[in-house]
Amino acid sequence: MRDFLPADVRKREYVIGIIKEVYESYGFEPLETPAVENLDTLMGKYGEEGNQLIFKILKRGEKLDEGLESIIQAANLESKIHNATLEGKLFPRFVDPVADLALRYDLTVPLARVVAHHKNDLPKFFKRYQIQPVWRADRPAKGRFREFYQCDVDAIGSNSMVVEAEQISAVCSILERLGFTDFVVRVNHRQLLTKVVHDAGIANESDALIALDKLDKIGDEGVRKELMERGISEASADRFLGLVKRGVPSDDLDRIFGLCKGLPVRLDPTLARGLSYYTGAIFEINVPDLAGSLGGGGRYDGLIGMFGKEQIPACGFSLGLERILVVMEERGMFPPEISGSTPADVMVTIWSDDTIGESLRFAGELRSAGLRVTVYPETDKIGKQLKYADQIRVPYVCVLGESELAEGKVTIKNMNAGEQILIHRSNAGEFLKNASNQL
Amino acid sequence: MRDFLPADVRKREYVIGIIKEVYESYGFEPLETPAVENLDTLMGKYGEEGNQLIFKILKRGEKLDEGLESIIQAANLESKIHNATLEGKLFPRFVDPVADLALRYDLTVPLARVVAHHKNDLPKFFKRYQIQPVWRADRPAKGRFREFYQCDVDAIGSNSMVVEAEQISAVCSILERLGFTDFVVRVNHRQLLTKVVHDAGIANESDALIALDKLDKIGDEGVRKELMERGISEASADRFLGLVKRGVPSDDLDRIFGLCKGLPVRLDPTLARGLSYYTGAIFEINVPDLAGSLGGGGRYDGLIGMFGKEQIPACGFSLGLERILVVMEERGMFPPEISGSTPADVMVTIWSDDTIGESLRFAGELRSAGLRVTVYPETDKIGKQLKYADQIRVPYVCVLGESELAEGKVTIKNMNAGEQILIHRSNAGEFLKNASNQL
Repeated sequence: MRDFLPADVRKREYVIGIIKEVYESYGFEPLETPAVENLDTLMGKYGEEGNQLIFKILKRGEKLDEGLESIIQAANLESKIHNATLEGKLFPRFVDPVADLALRYDLTVPLARVVAHHKNDLPKFFKRYQIQPVWRADRPAKGRFREFYQCDVDAIGSNSMVVEAEQISAVCSILERLGFTDFVVRVNHRQLLTKVVHDAGIANESDALIALDKLDKIGDEGVRKELMERGISEASADRFLGLVKRGVPSDDLDRIFGLCKGLPVRLDPTLARGLSYYTGAIFEINVPDLAGSLGGGGRYDGLIGMFGKEQIPACGFSLGLERILVVMEERGMFPPEISGSTPADVMVTIWSDDTIGESLRFAGELRSAGLRVTVYPETDKIGKQLKYADQIRVPYVCVLGESELAEGKVTIKNMNAGEQILIHRSNAGEFLKNASNQL
Repeated sequence: MRDFLPADVRKREYVIGIIKEVYESYGFEPLETPAVENLDTLMGKYGEEGNQLIFKILKRGEKLDEGLESIIQAANLESKIHNATLEGKLFPRFVDPVADLALRYDLTVPLARVVAHHKNDLPKFFKRYQIQPVWRADRPAKGRFREFYQCDVDAIGSNSMVVEAEQISAVCSILERLGFTDFVVRVNHRQLLTKVVHDAGIANESDALIALDKLDKIGDEGVRKELMERGISEASADRFLGLVKRGVPSDDLDRIFGLCKGLPVRLDPTLARGLSYYTGAIFEINVPDLAGSLGGGGRYDGLIGMFGKEQIPACGFSLGLERILVVMEERGMFPPEISGSTPADVMVTIWSDDTIGESLRFAGELRSAGLRVTVYPETDKIGKQLKYADQIRVPYVCVLGESELAEGKVTIKNMNAGEQILIHRSNAGEFLKNASNQL
């Protein structure tokens, strides 16, 4: 997990700002959920691998004591019965007694929980976006971190393919606004995959799809091998790969492609998506120079029903902030006002201990004019103060010395041009505001 | 921990937006740190009570197995030696073997870690703000939650009281911008408290300050009782309370009050602050109708040295987002455009399956004009679509029926006035943009 210094934060906020703006322009509303969920809410929603990658939080106080004691007793009982040591197989059997909470693993399951619990507070169709971090105890890789931000957009309550089309359109609009021109939205349908799995004579759909999901990374031969390692016969594996690539017609997909004319969408019958909760159309966005995807999503009509009495249709799209940032950084896609931003428009120097109050007051006057103003924090040689201004790349420095104060004036130094002028203090705000706008 | 539905998020973002804007106008730069820190980084920084309130994260995989086994072995060894059960005293002795990470408890300790580790990437004086959630396993109360946002501003690298003065000024400016008129910044100095503790003949300073910190809540008699419960003699307790209230002169505080003329600052010799890392001036902001504080802070010149070789002076101020929101909500302080905000400026209806494409295209045209546009997601009776528009309080609805499409026009319905007009489709964006700006 990483710290983000100011230059990083500004780039992140630039991208998040555009994502928010576009999502809002499509009528999506903001939602935020807590970082911490009940462990029960998350377990079993992301498949077996997901269960292991969830960060679990230790119980506290007496409940932790009770949990630890129950583990000790159970372990002793087992070793008595089997007359043997436990041989390091305590996890995951012994997680429940000591953990009760967990860190959010994605934004979709919390949304499903919110919709099930707050149904009466939400409109008939609930269109929400959510931009928050999630955590996975995964091995880090390029553009993959243990803490990362998802930028999700979901629409709850409608079966109509208008939902899919609008979400694809919104996500394309975001990437265009960020300057991407070479992305492709690949689309497939879970029900087609289910049919193909069945036609190939494979009993365990989830095994087949987990293997297929790796096609981009490990190729045909790799998928074939993994299918067989998962106990699927060679004949079924071959038949599955053959059928998958041929594709199956689908009314839903025809509808989506019809509504997405002019957008870079493309059918990919081999697209599988790892998560188990999808039930309809699935999507993934790729660019040529990133192995993983920039984002993905799909329809999940069964998930909300797991948290309440009612089955409510839903569909969503998730962009990975860090993936987008990695590509934009490598390609140099940030506009100059973001990559070259400074902590302030102006720095006010301090002439002497006696004039600190005047410097602070003057800084306040400049702020009232709408400028971002930093004050050098201590009395120091003017040379040192200018050197610091250089270090933080502030474009203008104001000197309020004794002679300036006596005359009601201020010396303004243009740090880039090296020039300076002496002007009336009351005009400084307007002068600097105009100068800053021209940068 | 709570979910924030759209209306809540908008209020939170409004307050955060003002806080960011003011902090930036004082030259502070944004920093973000991960939610998860190493457990070692946090333990021992917040006092004994703090240690217990830190959310700890379970180790994973083999390391968890090893930890559990070591607990089982140690427990069995102990019960053999003492020939007795463990009597429920496993916590906190047995946390270390099973937990390695923890949730961020405040934003100051992570900042100290960042400054110690990234020193060469930071300017000589580092002025940062940070607005992120923190987590404490505390009992919830009014305006107090287990997940809450801190809005911190800190300046690293200077001993000068200019730092304190600028931070007090920034925080006052934020509260004024939010509409507060009745807040007071109470100021005291840790070194004065140390002197008073010593003069009262009390050996354990931290005991004395933890008790004094509760003065607002439990009054003189309560503090006196707690001091005695902590083993301090009646005579020392009385002497301490007497000396504290008298106050002690301080050059630092004189300087701060001199630089804060015109701001609502006030010396409070009884102000203690709970956290143990403060070394100089301490502050707290209060309003009459909230028992706790809206924020607080102080100088902590020793903390960064705990993470690196160098002692670096530092001072910071932290605003509690939820505390501010609770008071603003009770007092009705949100501007109407925030409390009455809608998910979109316009809703576009869908006339029939055949015209969906046209409705989506028209929504895109309105978005290009800068409008926030939601599309009703399915073909439905127009009455139902209008009812939904009412439910989500969208002020304008566009109907693109067959006759409108044939004529290149659109019907725009003003939902508040109940009126409607038929205009050329190419003029709709401008018309609606003007109408929305007048709302």
